[in-house]
Amino acid sequence: MNTLDLGFAKIDMEREKRQGFPEVIYCAGKTPEQSAEIFLKLSEHSPNVLATRVDEATKDALLAKVPDAKYYEKARIVALEREPQPKDKDRVITILTAGTSDIPVAEEAAVTASIMGNEVEVVYDVGVAGIHRLFEQMPVIKKANVLIVIAGMEGALASVVGGLVSKPVIAVPTSVGYGASFDGLAALLGMMNSCAAGVAVVNIDNGFGAGRLASIINHMR
Amino acid sequence: MNTLDLGFAKIDMEREKRQGFPEVIYCAGKTPEQSAEIFLKLSEHSPNVLATRVDEATKDALLAKVPDAKYYEKARIVALEREPQPKDKDRVITILTAGTSDIPVAEEAAVTASIMGNEVEVVYDVGVAGIHRLFEQMPVIKKANVLIVIAGMEGALASVVGGLVSKPVIAVPTSVGYGASFDGLAALLGMMNSCAAGVAVVNIDNGFGAGRLASIINHMR
Amino acid sequence: MNTLDLGFAKIDMEREKRQGFPEVIYCAGKTPEQSAEIFLKLSEHSPNVLATRVDEATKDALLAKVPDAKYYEKARIVALEREPQPKDKDRVITILTAGTSDIPVAEEAAVTASIMGNEVEVVYDVGVAGIHRLFEQMPVIKKANVLIVIAGMEGALASVVGGLVSKPVIAVPTSVGYGASFDGLAALLGMMNSCAAGVAVVNIDNGFGAGRLASIINHMR
Amino acid sequence: MNTLDLGFAKIDMEREKRQGFPEVIYCAGKTPEQSAEIFLKLSEHSPNVLATRVDEATKDALLAKVPDAKYYEKARIVALEREPQPKDKDRVITILTAGTSDIPVAEEAAVTASIMGNEVEVVYDVGVAGIHRLFEQMPVIKKANVLIVIAGMEGALASVVGGLVSKPVIAVPTSVGYGASFDGLAALLGMMNSCAAGVAVVNIDNGFGAGRLASIINHMR
Amino acid sequence: MNTLDLGFAKIDMEREKRQGFPEVIYCAGKTPEQSAEIFLKLSEHSPNVLATRVDEATKDALLAKVPDAKYYEKARIVALEREPQPKDKDRVITILTAGTSDIPVAEEAAVTASIMGNEVEVVYDVGVAGIHRLFEQMPVIKKANVLIVIAGMEGALASVVGGLVSKPVIAVPTSVGYGASFDGLAALLGMMNSCAAGVAVVNIDNGFGAGRLASIINHMR
Amino acid sequence: MNTLDLGFAKIDMEREKRQGFPEVIYCAGKTPEQSAEIFLKLSEHSPNVLATRVDEATKDALLAKVPDAKYYEKARIVALEREPQPKDKDRVITILTAGTSDIPVAEEAAVTASIMGNEVEVVYDVGVAGIHRLFEQMPVIKKANVLIVIAGMEGALASVVGGLVSKPVIAVPTSVGYGASFDGLAALLGMMNSCAAGVAVVNIDNGFGAGRLASIINHMR
Amino acid sequence: MNTLDLGFAKIDMEREKRQGFPEVIYCAGKTPEQSAEIFLKLSEHSPNVLATRVDEATKDALLAKVPDAKYYEKARIVALEREPQPKDKDRVITILTAGTSDIPVAEEAAVTASIMGNEVEVVYDVGVAGIHRLFEQMPVIKKANVLIVIAGMEGALASVVGGLVSKPVIAVPTSVGYGASFDGLAALLGMMNSCAAGVAVVNIDNGFGAGRLASIINHMR
Amino acid sequence: MNTLDLGFAKIDMEREKRQGFPEVIYCAGKTPEQSAEIFLKLSEHSPNVLATRVDEATKDALLAKVPDAKYYEKARIVALEREPQPKDKDRVITILTAGTSDIPVAEEAAVTASIMGNEVEVVYDVGVAGIHRLFEQMPVIKKANVLIVIAGMEGALASVVGGLVSKPVIAVPTSVGYGASFDGLAALLGMMNSCAAGVAVVNIDNGFGAGRLASIINHMR
Repeated sequence: MNTLDLGFAKIDMEREKRQGFPEVIYCAGKTPEQSAEIFLKLSEHSPNVLATRVDEATKDALLAKVPDAKYYEKARIVALEREPQPKDKDRVITILTAGTSDIPVAEEAAVTASIMGNEVEVVYDVGVAGIHRLFEQMPVIKKANVLIVIAGMEGALASVVGGLVSKPVIAVPTSVGYGASFDGLAALLGMMNSCAAGVAVVNIDNGFGAGRLASIINHMR
Repeated sequence: MNTLDLGFAKIDMEREKRQGFPEVIYCAGKTPEQSAEIFLKLSEHSPNVLATRVDEATKDALLAKVPDAKYYEKARIVALEREPQPKDKDRVITILTAGTSDIPVAEEAAVTASIMGNEVEVVYDVGVAGIHRLFEQMPVIKKANVLIVIAGMEGALASVVGGLVSKPVIAVPTSVGYGASFDGLAALLGMMNSCAAGVAVVNIDNGFGAGRLASIINHMR
Repeated sequence: MNTLDLGFAKIDMEREKRQGFPEVIYCAGKTPEQSAEIFLKLSEHSPNVLATRVDEATKDALLAKVPDAKYYEKARIVALEREPQPKDKDRVITILTAGTSDIPVAEEAAVTASIMGNEVEVVYDVGVAGIHRLFEQMPVIKKANVLIVIAGMEGALASVVGGLVSKPVIAVPTSVGYGASFDGLAALLGMMNSCAAGVAVVNIDNGFGAGRLASIINHMR
Repeated sequence: MNTLDLGFAKIDMEREKRQGFPEVIYCAGKTPEQSAEIFLKLSEHSPNVLATRVDEATKDALLAKVPDAKYYEKARIVALEREPQPKDKDRVITILTAGTSDIPVAEEAAVTASIMGNEVEVVYDVGVAGIHRLFEQMPVIKKANVLIVIAGMEGALASVVGGLVSKPVIAVPTSVGYGASFDGLAALLGMMNSCAAGVAVVNIDNGFGAGRLASIINHMR
Repeated sequence: MNTLDLGFAKIDMEREKRQGFPEVIYCAGKTPEQSAEIFLKLSEHSPNVLATRVDEATKDALLAKVPDAKYYEKARIVALEREPQPKDKDRVITILTAGTSDIPVAEEAAVTASIMGNEVEVVYDVGVAGIHRLFEQMPVIKKANVLIVIAGMEGALASVVGGLVSKPVIAVPTSVGYGASFDGLAALLGMMNSCAAGVAVVNIDNGFGAGRLASIINHMR
Repeated sequence: MNTLDLGFAKIDMEREKRQGFPEVIYCAGKTPEQSAEIFLKLSEHSPNVLATRVDEATKDALLAKVPDAKYYEKARIVALEREPQPKDKDRVITILTAGTSDIPVAEEAAVTASIMGNEVEVVYDVGVAGIHRLFEQMPVIKKANVLIVIAGMEGALASVVGGLVSKPVIAVPTSVGYGASFDGLAALLGMMNSCAAGVAVVNIDNGFGAGRLASIINHMR
Repeated sequence: MNTLDLGFAKIDMEREKRQGFPEVIYCAGKTPEQSAEIFLKLSEHSPNVLATRVDEATKDALLAKVPDAKYYEKARIVALEREPQPKDKDRVITILTAGTSDIPVAEEAAVTASIMGNEVEVVYDVGVAGIHRLFEQMPVIKKANVLIVIAGMEGALASVVGGLVSKPVIAVPTSVGYGASFDGLAALLGMMNSCAAGVAVVNIDNGFGAGRLASIINHMR
Repeated sequence: MNTLDLGFAKIDMEREKRQGFPEVIYCAGKTPEQSAEIFLKLSEHSPNVLATRVDEATKDALLAKVPDAKYYEKARIVALEREPQPKDKDRVITILTAGTSDIPVAEEAAVTASIMGNEVEVVYDVGVAGIHRLFEQMPVIKKANVLIVIAGMEGALASVVGGLVSKPVIAVPTSVGYGASFDGLAALLGMMNSCAAGVAVVNIDNGFGAGRLASIINHMR
């Protein structure tokens, strides 16, 4: 069986085989009941299940159905982790944010990568307005195997970090900012135009996507 | 009499003759009282009446005036169907959605097409991230006479389906997504640029328009 | 010495040490003389030098200064490769394009990745309008270590490929298209919103950036 | 054999079987040689072949390879029509343009639909600034089986026509206009927001797509 | 005295002399207290005062200070009219709306023009989807001295009316619509590109500006 | 006869009766032959004919067909004026430009208004960067019956003039500028948001439309 | 110690030395607890601390931790000012707003500049619709050493003021307006295109940034 | 005499008195003859005259009229400097560019500031992709009195420099880049959202405006 048909959803049951991790539930736009039903079904076939963009009501519905799942509040994630995946301590995914307000996106990336079996290190608030804060973190940055750079406003941190390392940089623009940030458009365009090579970009506020891609890269041998 | 003048609205009384179905009431932006008054007047001249974008208050006002109308909650439609139109079982309008969150738009299309006298089949959650789910539905897709493809985010499903069939495809971008989806703009542009011919696009979230056009095409002999 | 100052340019002489490959010359916006001077200086310190976005006049100026450099016409690249880097035949970077018109961007990516020491395989014209063409290439796709997906118009190929593989996908939107493609904006937004995880995006037509990032990832052990 | 691989292109050889007409060559962005080679190969398997967006050089290359093909200058189309498809005189596709400048797009639609086996009637220059010109054409409009409405500037013609007929209307925004037309964006948005149901939209200047979709609909029985 | 300085506002006391009507208070963004204070001061110097974009709280504050002012709910206007201006019954400003949802904007225009001494006639819901409704109003339209055309969605009504009359047409795009209407942008661009001459456009939802300009034109002798 | 059908164009022969001036030929996008044929036909029915956006080749074609027509180079207009319309010297249309580069648009407006029977006065280069230049023209401005304000860049002149006069102001944004002027978008948005009432806006660079509307208003009695 | 690491934030402790004022806390997007903790830590090292975009809950948290801080309601600022900086009465920063609704942004600028040791003068509501109000303030404007011009809608005030003075003008677009102001975009573009030299622009509603830059310039000797 | 009226231009003859330097001629959009005539007239009243955006033909026309003027090719400036203004060697305006392609904009700023009496230092090609190149210039940067930062692509250099200095930073986005740089929009938005305070932005490619504003600030005492 490749697909489990719930009517309102068709669960891709071979995604784990095809892509190394079961289908992840993006809860925004689904009713709490829909999310919970999918979560339950996935939990019957996979030991590890992940749900993102979980609001209060959805969290309650998920935990009611699968009580041993865990809620990560800042990351807005509910995860079931019955068979934690082994982590290679020497291959660290390092997550850098430009500011404090970027933390929720960073947490989404961190929890995602961690549950997918990666050692994760987070460094918050090293934006370029006080660039020495970034350079103080060079030992951490240098030892990273994959980097995720998360920034709103003008998103300049991605370019700076991209020029400092020889490892892949996944840039996540955030909707942090106001006025001409246009809900993350400024950061997105900035990161797309990064003058540093080795940088690629995911959607605004898409911590999950960054964590997932970082995990894929980090597992390459 | 071609027009019934209510002051705040001029009901087009010859639309049924001209276009095969009476004027449909788009309730957003109208007061519940205005919508209900129009609905009542239409019901005095036509056995079948349709109102879309019906919120709670409007639904109550409509049903108070015309108690035998029916409320379709997911579709946000109130419909009066005193003389159900005959349906040709062999000419199916097939509605495909990329995700679960696209269901309200799909329901608007499905109820619209159904009331206008079409056999409708819906298939939810066959987005391209797990494309085998789509191919599992090929028997359904192949037997469609007209297809409606509903997708948010990048809207890629329209192009893929457009390349698989020899029947017309009506693509409906939805506002499902976040960040660089810009409330459906990404899906809209994607669908406009579909590399598959045979695809045309209606407004973001415009399930009604898709259902209406599909019905027109489906009745061609 | 970290920087070689030519007045009009400051060559980053430690980039090879820092990032594994010398500074690459982006020739657009530079005079042929400026590009040639930088190319010559780099060639005095590094055996391998790369110049991108090379037009006719710049090509002539580069080859006049460094006759053993080679011009890749389709890729608009001039490269000096005095010490070709070893390639691991088992780690293939696979480049897929949606159409024939995307070939120049693909060539830029292919030449870049090849010179940086990667086995590269290219598959042209497998866009989703005839999706069986893509599935016929599944053996090639499955054996890829890193994938670059290049598409204009709606860019749907990135989402489809992203859902089929467990390896990283670098998506390159191209300016191929017309009308509502808005010079690549439609493809860019589409790829940013990919419903498949594991996809990240570089700038429109940025074959070089994709090749560079793919090379970085492909060398991870 | 499903695909004919020319290296730079993969010709979809089963498109005719799958979609009723062989793959159509979009020549923009291809070299004249590439277009001509594809045209030749297709002509060896199909009696009827269509190439769009044909410039001077490409036209010469195509006719040199396949001398019995025919060049439609205004439509920028080269077509081979060795087995003209039968046309049902009673099912007319009617093409309306708002202005004289929209004619090239209309011709692309007309030639496309004609070669695909449809009776086509064109009516130029009936934009809404002199709406009596449109009403004078009501007999033509009323007898249409499918309508294509082509307009630049504000694109209002689509809404007006959409409200007059009970047949499907395919709207084609054009890049005709200046200033705030933003190369067709104004017309595109206008047509997407048409207050008349039964209208769907294809890409700016996409006469081919409109002709193709109209043909598909027109052949429905 | 040309200006009355309230600190938070500088009232332009010579506007009546310069432009024929005292400064009008745009209440959005002002506190109720600020609006009320300005209203009171103006009322001490002018018999007629107008305040627009009046919300509940502001209305209460205004009427508390100036009890003989009158609240026009649909128009969101509070007006003091101690010396009603004479109206020329033979010079009618005619206001047409495309739909019922455009009525609040139309009311703002109507009340503005009326208080400024103009005979005003309103015709609601004559959008182009049922264009006979518009033609039924030709007697009203023909006798207009100045026309205000108010429409959301694609805004096509302005072009159609502009082509029918020999009098000036002031077009007001509204934010009525959804999806690709982008809060009135589609209507605005449509109206800017009107293929009919004699049409000029004011800001989205700017009923006041249209009423004011219509009044200026209507008083020309 | 209401319409003269040339095939590629349908000339609206009753426009003069309906709107006071014959159809005006917008030559951009038409071939010189098409423009000339329309011009000739119109000249057979009307003593006065106007063609705008006339390039070199079109000018030659027009004058070859109708030698007594006159070419206004700066205005890019060819006009036939066999029966010059009388002008009321006391009702002046005053055209103000912000800069020297706006002159071609101003000339288009001036020639249009003049041929339609209006006294026109032009004042160039009174932009707000040296606002005393504007105030030096107050006598001219004060005596205007209708004003046309033409400005690129930020378009501020429209707001300033709108606040000084009691007559209607037609604002024309121009594509003069660079960078963030985005081909006139900045001026258009600025003028749409004018804080002065009594201002309405036509399309970017639309000198003709402004001249036409000014003429309509100027003839009101 | 250059940086004080709170985990969720890295306080830049040398910013005062480097830039003359300690790090300023932008509270939007931070939890009240985070803002309060940073404020407290900064207050332990600097006598003067500034927090902007302070909402009700954050204000309470800040004052609970540092009771001698002061809340500026209109400016949405909490400031600690234990060692007020000396002010040079002869060097005035003059802040002009176009309207009353721009006051909160002006207050943010004024409080910022004042706390950083500048004499500040504010003039509200001198927008160009009644330009004599501006000219009445010429004595104030002439004596300014640095000017901040704050305007929404079309933002024309910046160009006018920029043309009147020989001192630097910092322009702040605001989100005041509606419709085509697009949340400040119109004002931003207008100000970027100012035809007056000597004007530079900060982000929409960025009163703080304007105050900070004005202070830097005002302290130059 | 405040204004010298040439018909096509009104020269602001009191600008020098009002703003410290005579009116500067922006030649783009003017004919060579217009520019030359203005230049000549200005040279009769002022010893120093500046013309920007000078193309080949305009340069020839200017030098023919005023042979002792000087052409600065890279800056596209023609300047007359009969009474060179004194420069304070201790107050340096420092101009930094991110890349080599930004040099023309930098030269426009440098020549402007120099002629207006400022010591200018330029540092090219210190973009953030190799940030050590920037830090190597810290001695130059630290001694600057005013900084102009010029960058295309993502424009990140402005934020980094803004965080390093205590002097005003004028940021100039350039149209250098491709794809999602959208002709400088990405850099403009990035710079508007700079997380460093003390930065303000001028129009894309506006080297003149930056040089002018820097000069004004640099002359403050």
